[in-house]
This record gives sequence, C-alpha cells and structure tokens, in this order.
Amino acid sequence: MDAGEPVKIAILGAGSLSFISNLVRDLALAKDLYGSTVELMDINPSRLERSYSFMKKYFAEAGASYSVEMTTDRAQAVREADFVLNIAFPIGYDNYGKMMEVAEKHGYYRGLDATEWNMVNVYAIYTGYEVFEAAMRAADDVEELAPDAWFVQMANPVFEVSTLLGRTHPKLKVVGYCHGAPEGAKLLTTRALGLDFDDVEFKAAGFNHTVFLSELKYRGEDAYHLVDEWLEQKAEDFWKREVIGPWEETLSKAAADMYKTYGQYPLGDTARSGTWKYHWDLKTKQKWYGPLGGVDSEIGWALRLYLRSQEEKREDVLVRPDVRATEKLPPQKSGEAAIDFIQAVTGRGKRVVYLNVRNDGVIPGVAADVFVEVPVQVDEGKLEPERVALSDRIRRLVLPVRLEKMERSLDAYITGDKQGLVEVLLEDPRTNSPEQAKDAIDEVLSLPFNENMRKHFEK
Amino acid sequence: MDAGEPVKIAILGAGSLSFISNLVRDLALAKDLYGSTVELMDINPSRLERSYSFMKKYFAEAGASYSVEMTTDRAQAVREADFVLNIAFPIGYDNYGKMMEVAEKHGYYRGLDATEWNMVNVYAIYTGYEVFEAAMRAADDVEELAPDAWFVQMANPVFEVSTLLGRTHPKLKVVGYCHGAPEGAKLLTTRALGLDFDDVEFKAAGFNHTVFLSELKYRGEDAYHLVDEWLEQKAEDFWKREVIGPWEETLSKAAADMYKTYGQYPLGDTARSGTWKYHWDLKTKQKWYGPLGGVDSEIGWALRLYLRSQEEKREDVLVRPDVRATEKLPPQKSGEAAIDFIQAVTGRGKRVVYLNVRNDGVIPGVAADVFVEVPVQVDEGKLEPERVALSDRIRRLVLPVRLEKMERSLDAYITGDKQGLVEVLLEDPRTNSPEQAKDAIDEVLSLPFNENMRKHFEK
Repeated sequence: MDAGEPVKIAILGAGSLSFISNLVRDLALAKDLYGSTVELMDINPSRLERSYSFMKKYFAEAGASYSVEMTTDRAQAVREADFVLNIAFPIGYDNYGKMMEVAEKHGYYRGLDATEWNMVNVYAIYTGYEVFEAAMRAADDVEELAPDAWFVQMANPVFEVSTLLGRTHPKLKVVGYCHGAPEGAKLLTTRALGLDFDDVEFKAAGFNHTVFLSELKYRGEDAYHLVDEWLEQKAEDFWKREVIGPWEETLSKAAADMYKTYGQYPLGDTARSGTWKYHWDLKTKQKWYGPLGGVDSEIGWALRLYLRSQEEKREDVLVRPDVRATEKLPPQKSGEAAIDFIQAVTGRGKRVVYLNVRNDGVIPGVAADVFVEVPVQVDEGKLEPERVALSDRIRRLVLPVRLEKMERSLDAYITGDKQGLVEVLLEDPRTNSPEQAKDAIDEVLSLPFNENMRKHFEK
Repeated sequence: MDAGEPVKIAILGAGSLSFISNLVRDLALAKDLYGSTVELMDINPSRLERSYSFMKKYFAEAGASYSVEMTTDRAQAVREADFVLNIAFPIGYDNYGKMMEVAEKHGYYRGLDATEWNMVNVYAIYTGYEVFEAAMRAADDVEELAPDAWFVQMANPVFEVSTLLGRTHPKLKVVGYCHGAPEGAKLLTTRALGLDFDDVEFKAAGFNHTVFLSELKYRGEDAYHLVDEWLEQKAEDFWKREVIGPWEETLSKAAADMYKTYGQYPLGDTARSGTWKYHWDLKTKQKWYGPLGGVDSEIGWALRLYLRSQEEKREDVLVRPDVRATEKLPPQKSGEAAIDFIQAVTGRGKRVVYLNVRNDGVIPGVAADVFVEVPVQVDEGKLEPERVALSDRIRRLVLPVRLEKMERSLDAYITGDKQGLVEVLLEDPRTNSPEQAKDAIDEVLSLPFNENMRKHFEK
C-alpha cells in the first residue's frame, strides 16, 4: 500500500456499538481516509447489523465517504485488510460476572484474576481463555490472508494478548492499543489541575494498565510541580466534595498514594490497580476510592451494569431512523487514537500514539519480547518507541510484579497446565489451603460456558 | 599489587571456626600464596582467639607460611587489604530462631522471610537488617581504607547484599560468593549419577540460591540425558532407600519436580526453595523432601541445631594442643572457591569460579545493576561472566518472582519504610488480614535484640 491510498480496515467484534460510535466520529473527521473500506465482523448477526446500519447512517449524515461492509466470517473480514482492529471480547460481561461470583464463594474476593497490579475487573488474565483464543485464531487468519496488515489488539487484556501474539506470530505486525494513559493524563491535567489540555505535553510508560506519568509540561514549561501543589493544597477538598466516579480513579486517594509511594503518578486504569493495600475488602477500597470503592468493587460492578443499560438506551436512540445521529453524537475526536495510528502509519502525517509494542530494550530490565506501553512516533510504516524514564521503585517494585502475572497467564494458556493456575492461587493472600485453590479453579472451569476452557486445561 | 605478589586477606566474622577450617585447608594447599597475610576480625574476642590459634597451629603443622593476625577492629583488618571476605552474620542463628517462633505465632509458618523462591531458613531478606548493616559499614571502611580491594560477600543473603553493595558502593569491586551451585552439581553427578566429578563439566546460572543447571558434560560428551535416565529408572528406588539429609535437597523429589516444571535442574539451595507447592506445611514438605521435610522444616531446623552442636565438639577436638589438626582435617580442597578466586584474580592461573556479579546484560531481561550468579572466567584482574542459556520458564516464571523479593527487601532496608514490610505480607498467602501482617511485623521488631532494626523502621 502506498502513502495516501485508500485502506481496508477490518473490525473484529464490531457488535459493540459503544466502540463503533467512537470510531465513526474519528473516521468522519479523517477526510484523508475517505474512499477507504470498513468491514465490520461479529459472530452475533443482530448486533452486527445494528453497528452496520448505524455506521452507514452516520457516514451518510456526515458526508463521510467510506465503503462499509459486514460479515460474520472472520476470514472474509480479514482478507485484503490493511488494518485489523480486534475488539472481540467473547467472554462477555455477564459470564465474567458469574465467574467472579463463583470465585467469591470460594473466598476469592473480586474473582480469580484480581491480583497485585491487576485489580481491574474483566482484565481476565487467568480466566481469559476465550479472549486469548479469539485473538490467536484471528492472528492465524491475518498471517495467512493479510500478512502485511497491522494487527491492532484493543480487547483486554492488552498486555497479555499483545505479548502472546508477538511471541506466537513473530512475523505479524502486532500493536496493542488502549486509550487509558492519554485519557488519564487528560483527566488529571484538566479536572484536577484545571489546565487546557491542548497546551499539555506529557510522557508516560509501563505496561498496559500499569503506566505512570514521567514528564508533564504546560505551555512548554515543566509542570509536574502542579500535581504536587494540587495534592498539597486542593486534593483533600476535592475528595470531600466529589465522589470519584467509575473510570475516574486517576483522581482517587489511591492514585495519590501510589504517586507518593512509587514516585510517578499512575494514569488511567493503573490507579484502579496496585497492591492489596488498596483492595483488601470493600472497606479498604472505599477508604482509597470513595463511597463507590472504585468501579472494580461490588458497588462499582453493579453501577457499571446500570450505566451499561443506560448507554444501551442512548444507543437505541442513535439508531432510530427519525434521529439525526450526528446531532446526538457530533463528529468530534473520540479520545481513541486507533484512527490516528492508521493515518500516521499510512503516511498521512506523523504523530505520537501511545501503543503497546515489543520492548526490545525500550524499558531496561524488561525482556525484549514483552510488550510495553510507551509513546511511539509513528510515521509511514515506521514505529519509533520513545525511551521514557521510570522511577526506580516502578522499575523494581511494580513492573516485575505485573510481569510475573503476565508470564504465568501466558504460560498457563500456552501449556494448558492447570497446575500453573493452582500455583498462581497458592501465592495469593486469599488462599488459606491448597484445596481451596484447587476447588475454586475446578468450579470456575466447570461452568457451562467455560466448556472450551475446561477442555483446554484438561489436556 | 603485581601478579604473584603476596596479598593481605581480611576475614570479617572470622569467629566461625567451621568457615575457618575450610579456609585453612585451601590456603595450606595454595603454595603460590605463601608469604601472604591473613587478618582475622570478629567482634567476639573469645571466638576470634579460637579461630586465630587454630589457624596458626594448622599452618605450622602444614608448613604453610602465612602471617596470621587478629583484631576486633574492622578498620584495622581492612586497612591495606587486597581481599575482604565478609562472612559476618551478626543476626545469629539463635535470634533468627526466635524471630521465626514469633512469626509462626502470628501464622507465618517458617518465618516472615519464607516466601516464593526464598524458602531457605536464615536467608533473612526482610529481617536481615543487622547483616545488611554490617556489610554496608564494612563496605564503607573498604571504600575509605582499601579502595582497590576485592570485597567478597559470603554471608547470606548473598543475592540481596551483593546487589545492595553494588548499588550503594559503585566504585567498590564487589562479588558475591556461594559454594552452593558447584556443590549441588557435584552431589547430583556423583551421588545420583555415579560419575567421576573430575571428568564433569557443567554450566549453571541464575541468582544466588535460584540457580539452574543449563549444561552437563561427561568426558567431553553431552550428559544431561543421564539426569533424565536417573529420574526415569533409579530415582524412585533412591527415594525409597535414602532419607534426603540436610543440604542434600538437590536429590529430593522437589528438585526433580522443579526440573520437570521449569526445564532445567535446580542446584544446591535452589532445591530447598521454589513455590508454596513444596512448602505449604510440614506434610507438604515431607511429601517433597522425605521424612525430615528438608533442612528448612521444623524438623530440619531442630536437626540443624543438633548437628551444629556435634560440629562444635569436633572443632573443640581440632583446637586441643595434643591433637594434630592436619590429621583430623587433612589439607584437601574444601569445596569453597574463595581462595581459587584470589589466586586467579592475582594472576596465579586463570580459572572459572561461580560468582555473583553485576548483571550488565549477562542474563537478558534482568536489570544491569542486579547481581547474577554465573560462571566467571577470572584472570589477573579481569572478570568475564559467561552468558548461560536459561529456559523460558526459568526466565519468565522464576527469576521475576525472586527478583521482586530482592527489590522489596532492599527498598525496605534503604528507605526504612515499615509499610514496605507490611505490603510484603499483604501479598503473602499466609496473611488473612491486614492487622495480622502489621501485628507480626511489630512483634518481630519489638524483640530486644532487634532494637536497631526497630529504630531503623521507625524513621
């Protein structure tokens, strides 16, 4: 593909209208991509049809000339694609909730996957078999049918899946993408510090969902001290006045404490994570995240289900024939940078995008084949990850912990070794006996919708 | 110092006669070091005097011409030294036993320090304040009074202390030394495989006490398959017939299982460690280590105290004026390679010594300033660490776990941050509540002999 030519973008898991409604806005604004093709793929025909109709309608209203297609056949979507955006999350929130329930019955508060620096619900690293499997099969298809395509992994867990695909499909052009770090930086600098985000420059690095702010500038001047000043002078008032909402944990007391402890400010979902210090039980979570206890507490989870149902109502409005979608959802940048990446890498103007890429020495002390989340200068086929300085404590006390969980997760998935899962729990503070660990895993595996995972781990 | 010149060797913590009785043999055999000076230093005058008299007597009997001196003043010992061997273990086994007892009362089986890949008793990484402090002050003295000397850390925990000194005293020539890996290789190849160790070549690598056999040759031919054959054909019989004795854990079922799990055979104290799979309780330990449950079980600990009292009786015989020490303890190589290192690094013949040295890329994926245990070609002032291939599972599932414990240990020691110790326990499967963790640490710190440590962590 030459610079500036139309491209084909395949979206796997396109039944998610909330994702599509971000994407359509960015595509509508990206006039230099007009003439390109978007092929939506989902295994659920009715959800697929809904996303397809919405996208067609939105582009028509916005005068955005894209060719939109749909298919339930992954191979069809992938064939001749230049970009494959994988947002497929086949595990589903309902089923994930059921797994958490079973795990809690066995004493595993917030599910088997909740562990140090991975306290984010639905970031299913041990029970994420279906997500891993979907990504692996998609990568197989891309390798075969569109070997030059960029594979953009956007479904969680991004850290695990991008590293997995990098190792198992070494010829594939894999990147992981998550909006969390830039969104966290925006939340911190606008809501807390009151800055104009257009004039903010920042650098952050780490692993996906374990990413810390290393530099902050405002109008060209160093501005990290503004964070300290906010914490000293205004944060206490802010915490008294405001209830930290779901996905606003970057502004929580936990985030402030992580900054104090590790020397750099945690961004986005990083602040939802950390050690058991912040997550031991609901009371502990409320101490650090306010009344909701964060979006990953039992309160946060219930609220999340409610918010999701509200969002579906809004989506129903968007797709109604009598409603102008571009009025309800004006074409403004969504905050997702997947389209920015596509523009930059196809020679439509270089820019910096936060991506998960093979480390290869970018973060010292981390193996070459681990995917790290860093700012990447993207310019016509070339990706130049920036070396960002992380604090000693982050390099020594945070990254190795998160790294080990990722390695255990991939090892268990690749080998199908159930003992690997048991040992994960033997290291877990919620485990009081080896039997408890084994029973919990057996019951989670025996859930009807986990049949494939159970077979995999019985090998 | 020029090649071949006499040297001054300072021994810190020389009151340990069991160590001195190894050293005298190696020195007696090292004729090319004759004319050198050995200065013994200990804070306990009577134990120091005993080691001094014994060494004088042994050298006289053996016709080994060394000048032997003693002092209770560390600065005096260190001044003008070419080598400082630090075996000081001021924490003491009795006190360590008391700390374990208090920890067990709070639910921490085998002490606060027992943790994944650090299940070795008296490898005190969190409660090792006095050992860290002694090494740091010794390093200060060496930096000031003998800046060109080699500092050889031999007191446990070697991994933690050598890394600590490397970071805090970057100009000092620090190496860590432990006989464990070569001794483990010898035990495996002679006792299990029945080979002649003179014809065995091997390579191993990792961190101290987390070290794995990557290559094995016999009479020039690859011989790793002999390990597999022993395990398949003879090991079951061996385990039925033999009781695995203290420090023989390299031959245990646990070692065999670690080999199967991680792909390379664990050597020496590595086999005493591993995950909670092998250490959950006495019953678990006995399953994997035989009736004693390994030297780190409660049975092993009591046996160790008994063996130590027996050893003291043998030592009493050695120092009796009417006994020829060289008859009771003939001048044969001890298995410790500290003297080999001294010979090689002073140009008395190059050789390979297993040392703990700054990583600097030797093991990929490990930070530069972490000390790794690898074979090092030592030749007249030059140390060339060998790159040894470790299995994926060791690099991914073992080293990051052990690394994190080391980093937490150093961070807590350097910052005096008690919360760091509490968080260590919040990640521990033996912890059932945050209060339990805090109470256990408070009571261990409140023990009378821990006064300095308590003050340090109250900063």
